[in-house]
Amino acid sequence: MSSSPSLLEKEIGEQPEALARTIDGNAKEAAALASEIKARGVIYVMIAARGSSDNAGVYAKYMFQSFNGLPVAMATPSLYTFHHTPPRLSNVLVLGISQSGQSEDIVEVLAEARRQGALTAAVTADGKSPLARQADHVLLLQTGQEKAVAATKTFTSSLAALACISTALDANGERRDALKRLPELASRTLQAAAGPAAARAERYRYMNRCVVISRGFCYGIAMEVALKLKELTYITAEAYSSADFQHGPMAMIEEGFPVILIAPSGTLLPVMQEFAQGLADRHAEIISISDAQEMLERGVTRLPLPQGVPEWLSPTLAVMPGQLLGLHLAIAKGLNPDAPRGLHKVTVTR
Amino acid sequence: MSSSPSLLEKEIGEQPEALARTIDGNAKEAAALASEIKARGVIYVMIAARGSSDNAGVYAKYMFQSFNGLPVAMATPSLYTFHHTPPRLSNVLVLGISQSGQSEDIVEVLAEARRQGALTAAVTADGKSPLARQADHVLLLQTGQEKAVAATKTFTSSLAALACISTALDANGERRDALKRLPELASRTLQAAAGPAAARAERYRYMNRCVVISRGFCYGIAMEVALKLKELTYITAEAYSSADFQHGPMAMIEEGFPVILIAPSGTLLPVMQEFAQGLADRHAEIISISDAQEMLERGVTRLPLPQGVPEWLSPTLAVMPGQLLGLHLAIAKGLNPDAPRGLHKVTVTR
Repeated sequence: MSSSPSLLEKEIGEQPEALARTIDGNAKEAAALASEIKARGVIYVMIAARGSSDNAGVYAKYMFQSFNGLPVAMATPSLYTFHHTPPRLSNVLVLGISQSGQSEDIVEVLAEARRQGALTAAVTADGKSPLARQADHVLLLQTGQEKAVAATKTFTSSLAALACISTALDANGERRDALKRLPELASRTLQAAAGPAAARAERYRYMNRCVVISRGFCYGIAMEVALKLKELTYITAEAYSSADFQHGPMAMIEEGFPVILIAPSGTLLPVMQEFAQGLADRHAEIISISDAQEMLERGVTRLPLPQGVPEWLSPTLAVMPGQLLGLHLAIAKGLNPDAPRGLHKVTVTR
Repeated sequence: MSSSPSLLEKEIGEQPEALARTIDGNAKEAAALASEIKARGVIYVMIAARGSSDNAGVYAKYMFQSFNGLPVAMATPSLYTFHHTPPRLSNVLVLGISQSGQSEDIVEVLAEARRQGALTAAVTADGKSPLARQADHVLLLQTGQEKAVAATKTFTSSLAALACISTALDANGERRDALKRLPELASRTLQAAAGPAAARAERYRYMNRCVVISRGFCYGIAMEVALKLKELTYITAEAYSSADFQHGPMAMIEEGFPVILIAPSGTLLPVMQEFAQGLADRHAEIISISDAQEMLERGVTRLPLPQGVPEWLSPTLAVMPGQLLGLHLAIAKGLNPDAPRGLHKVTVTR
């Protein structure tokens, strides 16, 4: 086992503080952006992002639609950088998400939006980055430097920054107040999940594939947990919405097939319960991430979430047990969690 | 080996005819829809679909943006069916794609769009289905009944129906003429790929995971080939854009890791060549689907495409070698390609 704690473990633990700074630090800029969204007649949002930031974008897709009435499209950067056939961008907010702010293709989507006169915004940790320079509004991830290759605190802080935008668009301050509870809830989540994740990881030492399933607000979290497992442990981990999974991939499930279910309380919990029953009928091995006792008990491995959290806030918490599982599984496999093979901290794609 | 040909094999072979009927049969309705898109000031498209139809939607996303200037958002049905918090739908075409036209959640997205006064259209094989009843315009998949559980001819016909819409929006008829070549190109594709797919499938008898990678117009095809492999052979097959793959998942690649590369000629071929070099450096096993000799030769297994095909038409062809690989791998594994375990032909999700 590893002697000194990894950078990854340290950075996972820094998330409550990073969330607090990011939420406090972006209230004003989010309000300015919200005003401009209203003033300029924005009727939908286009998000440009890659990797973990793209998964954060999926969270925004549910939140902006559900609470702010704004449909969300995900950009296809290759049409800007290679085909040079970008779409017409009118009445749209084009929002780039990139921790480093360096990814050329994401920068180019914003640059094109600006050329067309569209409103632009960026969520990034670097206010001087090429991405920030193309944005009318910059929301800063106030995480301190992230050194481990696998993004953790920049991911959850991106979710928080996106929540700042969504709550700034609200007429009343109810959700803005709720958002302030996030750092404390994050501390409780890490405390409760760290023990079980460390204790149970060895069971999966020889697992080489699994699926990660959720639906609704946590769908992007399923994608992020799958990405962490791939980056940190090299296993094949694929994310699905439970609805898409029933359209074909369900055929893969055989006895003992490992399924990570992310199912916090909320509107979709009964659907996820029913889905879990279908998996149990096929004798899948369930790893459950939930605050709901009945759902947790579906799991051979149970990673708890705090109770009483609004559905739209739970994604930022629900990713944390998955981060911890990735960390401890990397350790159980004898891998270095700070520097996965073949990856660099900043990935520049065109 | 199986004695009589499977329904799946038969239906794969029927694709050229199904394409011809679908392209001829929808010209008029596509023109009517195109006129209304222009008349009603539509500035973006929202697509609602699941499974293979969702993969067809990804093709439309590239085509509508690149050729018609229309950004494309993918709908999140659970916000309509469970949360009852749909977004505001203005200046939008809401397009449902469902072979059966039965999926409740997709129907509900169109019903809500109609309640809000948005323009709606459906691509479906059943003109009397619940989905068709919610659509202002219905493009019919003229495939004849599809009996095998895994969609093949309805998938490629969906791509063709979407191309009918895109080409109807063009000012001139150049792409409409090019589209008429598709059935003949499909025949040539099937002829050229059937032999290699059958001959090479046994090599992968014990493969239990792989990735399928493309970028741009064929990204949705990578998703569809991965879905066919999952449905038909129960392996873990995950699709990626080559850009996203470099943001983390590249860490999975070790010596012999199987990668299906879909890389027809076009703007992105040099990018895919460079990506293939990165895989070769890591000693991945490449299965290549391409018309370009240099790219084909990257493959230990080579599935050829016809040459001289415009980039936007190649996706309908590029899926076919993947369908054939799925078919023959199912046979090599002793599985029934017509009825994968745990699946039904019509999947109804809410």
